Amino acid sequence: MHSYFSSDFKLGILGGGQLGKMMLYDTRKYDIQTYVLDPSADAPSRIACNHFEQGDLMDYDTVLKFGQKVDVLTFEIELVNVDALEHLEKEGKKVYPSSSTLRVIQDKARQKNFYQNHDIPTASGTYFASAEAIQHASHSYPFVWKSTTGGYDGKGVMIIKSDADLHNIPNVPCIAEEMIPFKHELAVIVARNPSGEIKTYPVVEMEFHPEANQVEYVICPARIDDKVAQKARSVAMKVSEKLQHVGLLAVELFQTHDDEILVNEVAPRPHNSGHYSIEGSITNQFEQHIRAILDLPLGETASKIGAIMVNLVGAEDHTGDVHYRNIEEIMRLEGVTPHIYGKRQTRPFRKMGHVTIVNKDINKARSIAEKVKETIKVVAK
Amino acid sequence: MHSYFSSDFKLGILGGGQLGKMMLYDTRKYDIQTYVLDPSADAPSRIACNHFEQGDLMDYDTVLKFGQKVDVLTFEIELVNVDALEHLEKEGKKVYPSSSTLRVIQDKARQKNFYQNHDIPTASGTYFASAEAIQHASHSYPFVWKSTTGGYDGKGVMIIKSDADLHNIPNVPCIAEEMIPFKHELAVIVARNPSGEIKTYPVVEMEFHPEANQVEYVICPARIDDKVAQKARSVAMKVSEKLQHVGLLAVELFQTHDDEILVNEVAPRPHNSGHYSIEGSITNQFEQHIRAILDLPLGETASKIGAIMVNLVGAEDHTGDVHYRNIEEIMRLEGVTPHIYGKRQTRPFRKMGHVTIVNKDINKARSIAEKVKETIKVVAK
Repeated sequence: MHSYFSSDFKLGILGGGQLGKMMLYDTRKYDIQTYVLDPSADAPSRIACNHFEQGDLMDYDTVLKFGQKVDVLTFEIELVNVDALEHLEKEGKKVYPSSSTLRVIQDKARQKNFYQNHDIPTASGTYFASAEAIQHASHSYPFVWKSTTGGYDGKGVMIIKSDADLHNIPNVPCIAEEMIPFKHELAVIVARNPSGEIKTYPVVEMEFHPEANQVEYVICPARIDDKVAQKARSVAMKVSEKLQHVGLLAVELFQTHDDEILVNEVAPRPHNSGHYSIEGSITNQFEQHIRAILDLPLGETASKIGAIMVNLVGAEDHTGDVHYRNIEEIMRLEGVTPHIYGKRQTRPFRKMGHVTIVNKDINKARSIAEKVKETIKVVAK
Repeated sequence: MHSYFSSDFKLGILGGGQLGKMMLYDTRKYDIQTYVLDPSADAPSRIACNHFEQGDLMDYDTVLKFGQKVDVLTFEIELVNVDALEHLEKEGKKVYPSSSTLRVIQDKARQKNFYQNHDIPTASGTYFASAEAIQHASHSYPFVWKSTTGGYDGKGVMIIKSDADLHNIPNVPCIAEEMIPFKHELAVIVARNPSGEIKTYPVVEMEFHPEANQVEYVICPARIDDKVAQKARSVAMKVSEKLQHVGLLAVELFQTHDDEILVNEVAPRPHNSGHYSIEGSITNQFEQHIRAILDLPLGETASKIGAIMVNLVGAEDHTGDVHYRNIEEIMRLEGVTPHIYGKRQTRPFRKMGHVTIVNKDINKARSIAEKVKETIKVVAK
């Protein structure tokens, strides 16, 4: 009979960034042996895993050889060699989330088709093979241009307001997506294990940084109507089920002005919108991902307390050795916990850490979160 | 200006057991560099610290040399060479808790005198230099025999019911302590930083295993009267202040039948009675210890939710490679999180892990905790 806890079982994780680092708190908690592959020699996950390898996540042979050393393989970033994952699955290796899920998600055109084919509400989108193709089509402005691959933290996404804007787009396959005016951007994290047990977390509300297009506040629970929240959770659950997804799926949603719920994008892994769960939830998203991919019973997703997450991103005009200015001041505020990812170098808008604010009163948490945001600065020494 | 976060600052930890391992979740969260010294090559803390050294914690030179490499030195176990700590303090090294605190606490006779000299309520106790000395004194039975040093998890403690029992005691300095009939055994964790900021956690209630004399359930909040809880917290705070303690102090207390509060013993470090705080408290005890010894602002000690901790100790008749029988069954129960310490070998009553059960209703948590206790068994493969 298999056993994960203090055994010879090996979990492989592709990617050693902050998501992997935080996942390792929970593999350590369970005493599960971990192997981590990352291109960077000073990846945040390097310590706390049992075995670290430096290598290219997009290289077929590197991923294949790494995967063959472990019993179950997962990833903390989508930009990995999917052909190698598929090869490993054919060899009988457990890879969660699966290569087929990842193929759908890695390509925004495929992702869009998937929603349309499964009656999952989403903004309409049209595929174009090249810059030329989209430039010669007729459009109703504004619309959203998305490169089909490689988009991350707002990269590979542009608002196109006129023909002129279309001259500057890179020559890559892309989609032209209807621009949705919305009340709120929401997210729901869904966990599903191979046995088909499935659970959703409460709906969170996101506020974005205007320039960087990165999440600034994640608020749990979202301050929305219960009916809308229920709809959001069932739409998110449908996406996970139709994908036959295993592991965590973060589903980003738009709440339209007439309270429609539309799927924006998904991420097949622990997600920035779930960091609040470390302090806020009965089962945090990282423990839940591990439970899911190992086919263990899923933990409760209910919140213990209201929670807000503030991203700590590098100040715009600072590059170099990081200093967290005024971090001691924010630690004096009620219910504040900083998370420092362990990157020595800061750059404009680089994700360097996050701060969680918990409070029984979510509005009080929100005002403390604003103080945190105004007080701490991620600067160069 | 000093900075701890993603800097060259080095925190040294004497001892690499489960307390150190759990402390490292929070040093990682803050990205504070850690050096760990432990006699065992497979200490649970070995991975996740930045630098591990194998060595004897009671050896003067080993502790001295180790301490000289770090900026602040702390410990997760009391059995360390105090003379080396004192030498390091004289060299200007920050050692928290201090060697003088540790000297008082390491010796139960000194500890008893300390309480008596500072009007801290405690059971009366008499010092004897040897077995012969205590055997020739007259006693009112039963009373509690305690070796002045080396007591741990019920070792070095005996209930003496008659002269006959006194024949079997080891020949070591000891105290004869009045046996206190009590309603509850309680504990309060106090955090204090060098600036003198001080906070107490809510009172927890402890239930002990009859044979092993190890804690079986820790219940937060204790199901006691508010007045008693207030008294317990102020007594605990007084102990920390009189010791001028820096870091965490776990204060074990008796609640007598007429609701007196008496100090039993203290531990100058994160403590088993505070493990519930990882899931239950706004600031867990390990993060709080780090905040305290680094003179950072202390975090909130209030609870997010009711929590009960169940120790996972090795089954009586099992020695060998550990297996956590039925762990998947307990993971199905509401609000259950297992913590596996990472010891490959189980022995009767060895502390192998713990399980936290959270619930808004503490009585519901208590019944789930009992199910956990009945279901999971720590056995040899």
